[in-house]
Amino acid sequence: MSARVVLAYSGGLDTSVAIPYLAKMTGGDVVAVSLDLGQGGEDMESVRQRALDCGAVESIVIDAKDEFAEEYCVPTIKANGMYMKQYPLVSAISRPLITKHLVKAAQEFGGTHVSHGCTGKGNDQVRFEVSFRAQDPSLEIIAPARDYAWTRDKAIAFAEEIDLPIEQSAASPFSIDQNLWGRAVETGFLEDLWNPPTKDLYAYTEDPGLGNAPDEIIISFEKGIPVAVDGQKMSALQIIEEVNRRAGAQGIGRLDMVEDRLVGIKSREVYEAPGAMVLIQAHEALEDVTVERELARYKRLTDARWSEEVYDGLWHSPLKRSLDAFIEESQENVTGDIRLSMHAGSATVTGRRSGQSLYSFDLATYDTGDTFDQTAAKGFVQLHGLSIQISNQRDRDGGFPTSAQK
Amino acid sequence: MSARVVLAYSGGLDTSVAIPYLAKMTGGDVVAVSLDLGQGGEDMESVRQRALDCGAVESIVIDAKDEFAEEYCVPTIKANGMYMKQYPLVSAISRPLITKHLVKAAQEFGGTHVSHGCTGKGNDQVRFEVSFRAQDPSLEIIAPARDYAWTRDKAIAFAEEIDLPIEQSAASPFSIDQNLWGRAVETGFLEDLWNPPTKDLYAYTEDPGLGNAPDEIIISFEKGIPVAVDGQKMSALQIIEEVNRRAGAQGIGRLDMVEDRLVGIKSREVYEAPGAMVLIQAHEALEDVTVERELARYKRLTDARWSEEVYDGLWHSPLKRSLDAFIEESQENVTGDIRLSMHAGSATVTGRRSGQSLYSFDLATYDTGDTFDQTAAKGFVQLHGLSIQISNQRDRDGGFPTSAQK
Amino acid sequence: MSARVVLAYSGGLDTSVAIPYLAKMTGGDVVAVSLDLGQGGEDMESVRQRALDCGAVESIVIDAKDEFAEEYCVPTIKANGMYMKQYPLVSAISRPLITKHLVKAAQEFGGTHVSHGCTGKGNDQVRFEVSFRAQDPSLEIIAPARDYAWTRDKAIAFAEEIDLPIEQSAASPFSIDQNLWGRAVETGFLEDLWNPPTKDLYAYTEDPGLGNAPDEIIISFEKGIPVAVDGQKMSALQIIEEVNRRAGAQGIGRLDMVEDRLVGIKSREVYEAPGAMVLIQAHEALEDVTVERELARYKRLTDARWSEEVYDGLWHSPLKRSLDAFIEESQENVTGDIRLSMHAGSATVTGRRSGQSLYSFDLATYDTGDTFDQTAAKGFVQLHGLSIQISNQRDRDGGFPTSAQK
Amino acid sequence: MSARVVLAYSGGLDTSVAIPYLAKMTGGDVVAVSLDLGQGGEDMESVRQRALDCGAVESIVIDAKDEFAEEYCVPTIKANGMYMKQYPLVSAISRPLITKHLVKAAQEFGGTHVSHGCTGKGNDQVRFEVSFRAQDPSLEIIAPARDYAWTRDKAIAFAEEIDLPIEQSAASPFSIDQNLWGRAVETGFLEDLWNPPTKDLYAYTEDPGLGNAPDEIIISFEKGIPVAVDGQKMSALQIIEEVNRRAGAQGIGRLDMVEDRLVGIKSREVYEAPGAMVLIQAHEALEDVTVERELARYKRLTDARWSEEVYDGLWHSPLKRSLDAFIEESQENVTGDIRLSMHAGSATVTGRRSGQSLYSFDLATYDTGDTFDQTAAKGFVQLHGLSIQISNQRDRDGGFPTSAQK
Repeated sequence: MSARVVLAYSGGLDTSVAIPYLAKMTGGDVVAVSLDLGQGGEDMESVRQRALDCGAVESIVIDAKDEFAEEYCVPTIKANGMYMKQYPLVSAISRPLITKHLVKAAQEFGGTHVSHGCTGKGNDQVRFEVSFRAQDPSLEIIAPARDYAWTRDKAIAFAEEIDLPIEQSAASPFSIDQNLWGRAVETGFLEDLWNPPTKDLYAYTEDPGLGNAPDEIIISFEKGIPVAVDGQKMSALQIIEEVNRRAGAQGIGRLDMVEDRLVGIKSREVYEAPGAMVLIQAHEALEDVTVERELARYKRLTDARWSEEVYDGLWHSPLKRSLDAFIEESQENVTGDIRLSMHAGSATVTGRRSGQSLYSFDLATYDTGDTFDQTAAKGFVQLHGLSIQISNQRDRDGGFPTSAQK
Repeated sequence: MSARVVLAYSGGLDTSVAIPYLAKMTGGDVVAVSLDLGQGGEDMESVRQRALDCGAVESIVIDAKDEFAEEYCVPTIKANGMYMKQYPLVSAISRPLITKHLVKAAQEFGGTHVSHGCTGKGNDQVRFEVSFRAQDPSLEIIAPARDYAWTRDKAIAFAEEIDLPIEQSAASPFSIDQNLWGRAVETGFLEDLWNPPTKDLYAYTEDPGLGNAPDEIIISFEKGIPVAVDGQKMSALQIIEEVNRRAGAQGIGRLDMVEDRLVGIKSREVYEAPGAMVLIQAHEALEDVTVERELARYKRLTDARWSEEVYDGLWHSPLKRSLDAFIEESQENVTGDIRLSMHAGSATVTGRRSGQSLYSFDLATYDTGDTFDQTAAKGFVQLHGLSIQISNQRDRDGGFPTSAQK
Repeated sequence: MSARVVLAYSGGLDTSVAIPYLAKMTGGDVVAVSLDLGQGGEDMESVRQRALDCGAVESIVIDAKDEFAEEYCVPTIKANGMYMKQYPLVSAISRPLITKHLVKAAQEFGGTHVSHGCTGKGNDQVRFEVSFRAQDPSLEIIAPARDYAWTRDKAIAFAEEIDLPIEQSAASPFSIDQNLWGRAVETGFLEDLWNPPTKDLYAYTEDPGLGNAPDEIIISFEKGIPVAVDGQKMSALQIIEEVNRRAGAQGIGRLDMVEDRLVGIKSREVYEAPGAMVLIQAHEALEDVTVERELARYKRLTDARWSEEVYDGLWHSPLKRSLDAFIEESQENVTGDIRLSMHAGSATVTGRRSGQSLYSFDLATYDTGDTFDQTAAKGFVQLHGLSIQISNQRDRDGGFPTSAQK
Repeated sequence: MSARVVLAYSGGLDTSVAIPYLAKMTGGDVVAVSLDLGQGGEDMESVRQRALDCGAVESIVIDAKDEFAEEYCVPTIKANGMYMKQYPLVSAISRPLITKHLVKAAQEFGGTHVSHGCTGKGNDQVRFEVSFRAQDPSLEIIAPARDYAWTRDKAIAFAEEIDLPIEQSAASPFSIDQNLWGRAVETGFLEDLWNPPTKDLYAYTEDPGLGNAPDEIIISFEKGIPVAVDGQKMSALQIIEEVNRRAGAQGIGRLDMVEDRLVGIKSREVYEAPGAMVLIQAHEALEDVTVERELARYKRLTDARWSEEVYDGLWHSPLKRSLDAFIEESQENVTGDIRLSMHAGSATVTGRRSGQSLYSFDLATYDTGDTFDQTAAKGFVQLHGLSIQISNQRDRDGGFPTSAQK
């Protein structure tokens, strides 16, 4: 059987040149698959046509924006998905969706191989390939940048050699991945950790120092899912777009971090994710009001593990599936409204209301109306600390340093 | 033996009136102990004198600012101590230190009882009493507000009845606890969760919208301990004061949250902790550069547990001692400088440098000089995902929904 | 409204005398509720009649054996429920079920109070009362042993005083709680931790040294639920009874431990739980074959937390509900057969087979048929250890002790 | 520089033939390093001589028994080191020690390469190579079985071809790794999971059904370290040997499991570890008496993580170092005696005594002398369950299913 490579096609130089290159290397032909994940930029039809111009036997474009919002971004909100407490998994959650459509295309078009443009030192190769093999291990995987040491210089030379009909833009100093959920930027200049990011890095957010007037927003959730902005019902996609726009205008969601990659190295990354940041912040604030203490404590551990699992490319793991079941159950009562004031680079929660609130004015107030039975507390405190009292006593009796002395 | 009550004395109305009241209720006398924890406000000598004026047989003032900074705030920095990912444990870490000095005073002055002013529905009663019993379970504990249902109204009436020489200030609407590490405010108005905080709540921070010029600061750490600001060596106390001042001027460190109290209820709390917030943020950024991935992942869990333990009043527990040992070992290489830009309510890390950095330009760069062996990645990815590939294959073979399909 | 107390009635001396005593103390009347949880012993109809003889206005007996097996024991199997890695939660899982029926009876018979016979230093008071309040906080709770300092001596004296028609058995030296899932024994003799248990403590198990012939058993599971023994389909209740009988005959399931009670003290406990121990062992062995590695690792943490939650009386907590969702999802493929050899006090797994096994002969074998791609391993190992290599290099470069040297 | 390969030499056929083979493949020469880790069997001097006979330029033997016992087995006891709750890490803890001596030999003898005999589908390659690179990343690693697809058949053919002076034993059906801490056996017959192990697999343990008289043993610990048996002080090495002998005679310590390998597959393994099993069991029983509840709960998680880290070949990781610090601190009071009865394949703890016990007769007893304040319990229970009461009430109020109903 001759090879047919199904390629994750972005429309850029690298994957455009990859079309004839993969055909040459495999002796087969190439099907280009492009997804609209809300990344903006070029018209998707132009992208589709370019793949054909570069020699693809088929080129398809899939509008996956709603699917991405509902099946990938919303679960990330429920899990308060933040790798290293900071990074809202912008690229990490897009890879499983891209692979899903590539595997589908391979089945439809008789693909024997799948291919992606990632290098051998990043996380995305892992996310692509683990997901491919989880769905169809019979598909062979080609990662030209890694497997053929295929570089941009080689790509340009090859394009000239075969006279490929694409413009050669001046090499951008940035390596960018962007979608509805955010934008990731890498660049040589940032590889010195003492250098601050420069203003030209950003596209989704305004300068937080610009001094716009504050913007107040009310986000409503039902069972952990954002369902309305300022009282107006919207789809998940619309909400993320709306919050992206308004939070971005306030300079919210910029992130500059040193990140622990799965492949064992640390890297410097700059992200913008205005909507993701604000939606997760609002969601956490609503959980604070509606989720019981011990469930909330344990969910924080679960959220962290979920985020690591997704970051590490394991979206399709049985562990993630069970973590999802935990999280889904925990969202039963995460329903209500969060009001935030967005300004000058940060969002501040200024109000919460929920029909399923666990906050009880009668129990919390120190004013008239207090129903809390304070006499219960004396015994509670005594037994709460009893094992510690006994162990410190043991230490004193034995002449050992007590915890209290250390 | 007649009673002698050692009282945690703040100088305020409640604990002032408590002096004659405790004497009356126990038939004994009262020793007042006041700690300077950097709370500012009134001169400590006036506080000392007032206790005597109210009838205390002894009144002592202890300057515990350095001890508090070094033994309580610095460990909180090392542990990135944040309850519910937000609250830097402002009151929680002061209670064990206060009890330490009360127990010492009880030993010195022949105390039979210790007493504090906390109510029966808060966390601080727990922190006081568990700490007292860990150190000296023979001391009886009296919490008048809880045990005698002693209220402010009763206190005022009693003060008038015995003609106590204290001024009755107009009842403040706020209940405040403050120290070097931050400031906590509760008030009836906030008990409606939809109400935003009002400006008069704040004292440690300026309005973030005031529009000061940004302030750049470099904080240096050695083994996790802050040791210098802008290159100038300082004590921990001086650093916290300095960062409080400068971050406070930028409106940084305000916090408005719904908190899970140990006694089982949710409460609304407003905090200000400019220095705590910025120092922990800087410390975390330096850990991102100097701590290995798996240690960092596990330390995040450990930090969360440490914070819960301290919040829950268990400073003297054997568990905290072992968590401390873990954290201490993890700080071996947390040495270096973090540069932050502080402005308009938020601090942003803009640079990191460390002689013990794990970031390797040669491994991370995509430019010339790259030493990362990309060929290793192919096999890594394959085995990293193998167990997931097998389990999805099993699901498909059995006609079960796979993780990839769910 | 006059009081009506719904009492958890065992038929023993203490709760029998409690009937007139509670009536006297509350000025109301008493409804006795007894559950058959497979505890064996006396005929339940005699128990029911005795309550009436002692003055109960109503006395009902509920056969809850199947409900207990299916809704309480089976979830414990799925969670491999073992407190402190040892104790299969014998009493802990029975309390929520008893309270469920008491609350129902209170609704049916107009109860205003519920009552149980537990003391103030054990775990069961917690399990009863947290469960009562979770289901109906309007019911007042009376625990005579704790709230009225009601002792066995007082009970006997009161029984004589009112001429109660019950036999006074010679005081047993044992305090026993038993049901289908196992049997708990406490006794003064065991309070010296150096004393071994004596033979008369045991009732569910034979002496393991008796030298019976080994007994081979095959237990079959579907989605984590035991469904057959030796190929014969049975109800959960029947399976637990059968394994109790056969494992008990081999002396399996005895447990002698020092236990961390929720109220802060350590206690010595002896248990027998032959069926529970063998069923959980078999279930774990089947999970080893059918559950993917990372899910299995995380499930062990989840199982431990589930067990603590249930031990601590928090069956009705939102956290347990979310843990249950995790566990339920994890059981999707826990289907297959486990063969054990039971003999002389221990059970040994000797075979596993499952249509949903993740064990692959082709991948595992070193013989002909090996399909594992060993070349992938070299790169895997390299990147798996890269962050550790870098951190040890950093330590050497800086003259610090490396992990490798410590 | 010409190659010099430092080889982990066992004396068996494979590593013997590897000596000339490595010399041939690298064009250099070979230094053989053999460790005595208490594996028994052949005299070490014969092993040393055989390497020379096979062409090694140097051959050294290191008696590392005490070092292994003290620096590797004892920490495993402190950590109750059991992978998957079952496997006491027999091979896993020997690899870092072997690599330590190989790296030392490489430094002494000018080695440029290190080599081991492991395949590409097991865990030991990972343990060797991560440890090598942690200690000296400049050493090149050769794993002939994996890197040259070097099989036993090829080895025999090569031995004949070069007329190597070694006997060709009939191929054993077993692949064995053994040391002081235990013995691991793999064999084709076990690759069918339904087959029980056969008797000829075992060498460290007698048949548990043989009917020896029970053997009572008292093991004493100081700060978690075993220091005496039956009252007689011994070195760690002597204690492990003694318990191996006596527990082995009772058939204790056999283990048959399906194991999750790091490389992503499940494998069937049979182990014998009589001393390890009994020492860890005794250590855990002593912890139950001397370690406070919450520390004990958290230590169980830490122990599990430690075991996974060691199993996964990450002995030299910074995480393990911090886990060690936690564990070390937790052992402060793990001092005392544990009495076990060993018989017919199992050990049963029958007594514990400790000067640092946290068990308090006065608090635990239900007899005269009880000092536990039961009145404290009522309030404790109330607040312990308050958040659950509130959340169930919320669910009822909202018409949602409560936790109590689910």
